[in-house]
Amino acid sequence: MKPVVLLGFWGSPFGQRCKIALAEKGVEYEYREENIWGNKSPLLLESNPVYKKIPVLIHDGKPVCESRIIIQYIDEVWPHRAPLLPADPYARAQARFWADFVDKKFHDCGTRLWQLNGDAQAAAKEELIENLELLEGELGDKKYFGGDAFGFVDIALVPFVSWFYTFENCAGFSIEETAPKVVAWGKRCMERESVANALSDPHKIYETVGVFKKTFGIE
Amino acid sequence: MKPVVLLGFWGSPFGQRCKIALAEKGVEYEYREENIWGNKSPLLLESNPVYKKIPVLIHDGKPVCESRIIIQYIDEVWPHRAPLLPADPYARAQARFWADFVDKKFHDCGTRLWQLNGDAQAAAKEELIENLELLEGELGDKKYFGGDAFGFVDIALVPFVSWFYTFENCAGFSIEETAPKVVAWGKRCMERESVANALSDPHKIYETVGVFKKTFGIE
Repeated sequence: MKPVVLLGFWGSPFGQRCKIALAEKGVEYEYREENIWGNKSPLLLESNPVYKKIPVLIHDGKPVCESRIIIQYIDEVWPHRAPLLPADPYARAQARFWADFVDKKFHDCGTRLWQLNGDAQAAAKEELIENLELLEGELGDKKYFGGDAFGFVDIALVPFVSWFYTFENCAGFSIEETAPKVVAWGKRCMERESVANALSDPHKIYETVGVFKKTFGIE
Repeated sequence: MKPVVLLGFWGSPFGQRCKIALAEKGVEYEYREENIWGNKSPLLLESNPVYKKIPVLIHDGKPVCESRIIIQYIDEVWPHRAPLLPADPYARAQARFWADFVDKKFHDCGTRLWQLNGDAQAAAKEELIENLELLEGELGDKKYFGGDAFGFVDIALVPFVSWFYTFENCAGFSIEETAPKVVAWGKRCMERESVANALSDPHKIYETVGVFKKTFGIE
């Protein structure tokens, strides 16, 4: 059996999702850091010819791309420990809906919030607040998004907790005031070794975003 | 047991996917047409408060949203007939990848192609051709995208076959020249009752697009 390989980038929430899922399952793997802004490795280019993006999980010599698809793959290949999706079809559909929401809405406006300025940034901030309120409502008084067990939606969302500091500082607002339950959930998740080991330092993200904005002339 | 209800809109590829999946499984359901440009029904608004969009599948009184999530839900609730996703985890990941590709890339540039004009339309056309070439390569000489059995990727892509006529006429090119295997696959799919009953008349779509463009002043 060939080793499991994960191609990632330190600051990528999508690569971090895969690290968390593999750690929850106790799967040993080789991590390879990619230079996503410079020369991508031949292995990345041949493993993900459509998007040429990390993360890519290579298992048994075959590549799997796109983080939410990778997490589901991991859950299906190693089903006997730490199930990530619930067994009930309706609960599975709900988990897929909210994980999809994180990518479609939350990530999208989070990115606009730090990459843009002026009115476009203000609009992104407003949307981000709406999204946080929706997530706050969905989480409610549950321990994790799926209930008592840490799972798919938690893995999809938790890497963005490291970005909260950047979001708050770029747009001048408090996520704790908007979504206190989500912030408390983020702290609960950080108590898990799988999460704590995967997430980036919020200050390092903010600093990198600053360099990015300076490079591209965004004030 | 409450009846299965599908909220859709005649021209929506996403609603058609759900019709095809339900037909493949032999599930009886009540179809309700929504007025997506006018007053949305209270049932739609309360069933999909996040996006307020069709399709929504209501099963046992509970709503499931987002077409690819609905198809997987249908496959998991009615597993004993016409499996839509393969059993093997790697094949499942591949099916999810290409169905996601249809939404992320193919649908996106198809929409830009008919909604825009000038350089933006030309760029969308070029991208659509690249996407068709990728799909042509992935299909290869297989009967369906997953092999011999009609499944998830076929259901995700086939409603767009009715849009080929519109794409070709809006941007002046031949999809058959670009992707002859995909066109032949589309014809094979249309031999299935589930597909033929769900898809829209290509001329009706083109006509509706014309009305849309006139209304919004797109030449």
